[in-house]
Amino acid sequence: MFNFGFSRLRAVNPYEVAFREARSAVGAREILEAAEEFQSVADAVADCALVVGTTSLGHRELEHRLRPLEDGARAIRRQMKSAPVALLFGSEKFGLSNEDLAHCHWLMRITTADRQHSMNLGQAVAVCLYELSRGDLDTAARPVRAAKPATAGETEQITNLLLDALRRSGYVNPVTSASTENKVRRLVRRLELSARDVPVLLGMLRQILWKLDSK
Amino acid sequence: MFNFGFSRLRAVNPYEVAFREARSAVGAREILEAAEEFQSVADAVADCALVVGTTSLGHRELEHRLRPLEDGARAIRRQMKSAPVALLFGSEKFGLSNEDLAHCHWLMRITTADRQHSMNLGQAVAVCLYELSRGDLDTAARPVRAAKPATAGETEQITNLLLDALRRSGYVNPVTSASTENKVRRLVRRLELSARDVPVLLGMLRQILWKLDSK
Repeated sequence: MFNFGFSRLRAVNPYEVAFREARSAVGAREILEAAEEFQSVADAVADCALVVGTTSLGHRELEHRLRPLEDGARAIRRQMKSAPVALLFGSEKFGLSNEDLAHCHWLMRITTADRQHSMNLGQAVAVCLYELSRGDLDTAARPVRAAKPATAGETEQITNLLLDALRRSGYVNPVTSASTENKVRRLVRRLELSARDVPVLLGMLRQILWKLDSK
Repeated sequence: MFNFGFSRLRAVNPYEVAFREARSAVGAREILEAAEEFQSVADAVADCALVVGTTSLGHRELEHRLRPLEDGARAIRRQMKSAPVALLFGSEKFGLSNEDLAHCHWLMRITTADRQHSMNLGQAVAVCLYELSRGDLDTAARPVRAAKPATAGETEQITNLLLDALRRSGYVNPVTSASTENKVRRLVRRLELSARDVPVLLGMLRQILWKLDSK
């Protein structure tokens, strides 16, 4: 991150011992010292207008769009001009879970010689940030979308109200609820909400919930 | 290396204990198992037509051309079509020495936000190989140089005969000989010798040496 000029590291439920040791290590960079800790992916990405997951495999279950790094980085650079973007990495061992992935607008992968083997986490981060920090080749890029996008926090607020509404209306089967939640979360992100629509949607959902509760 | 489809790893004087352990580790990739060991950079790159050093800093002393990774990778991809290319990395701690650098035709650096800090070795390798394995954007590339280039082994052979000749003719000051050797080594590489000229040059140098010895 330091090498490529990125400064905001956010960790979701890091392994406390290792994280504390890394932070207090001699020569720890300011990035690690300033790293923020969160209890959930939702909290960690709340102020971001775009959340991009990274994967070596592709995850078909949630029907994400999967872009190669070169294309994805271009889109991220465009978005970064108007609002913060979260680039989400999973653990070295397991990658991102379906629950994590449900928070992502789309996924990105590094084109490798062999899809069967994932990359070392630090190396994958370095390659992604290298590509992101590449000389801006986008002078002739498509214009930034006119409407200001909703932040991930706003989108998640809407998602949660919608899920509440679905639960209370008996739509969510308790046995498969985790899977359903992920699918709903993804669906809301596919809408690519604009900021101006957020209060309207929230108002609508609150109204529905009020009605459901008063029954 | 595995992720980006590269297979030939060559180690120059690796730390024996660590190298043996890494090779025999459970799950060690075929790349590590097949890695070759050499006593010197010269031996390690002997069959290569192009030797590219990597650096975070730039080394002005030996007057190498320093290319950003994007440009360097394009040149390497072109050369790889006709002959093997060596990409030389130094140790994590010290990078490449002047002696190592003297074997290089030119140097390459990853464009980073801050030149003061070098990169983690594994991450630097990953970024370089990512860029090298990038979709070949060179369909409209300049034609491959017509003349087949000399291998690094041939170039080194010429360098050594030349150095012998310089030593025996009193050109090389014993106190500064290491520095002089590096400068001569670089000079020969800047010539970018073609394979066809090698026997001619060797013949000339041998003749000179014979003359010097017979005095």
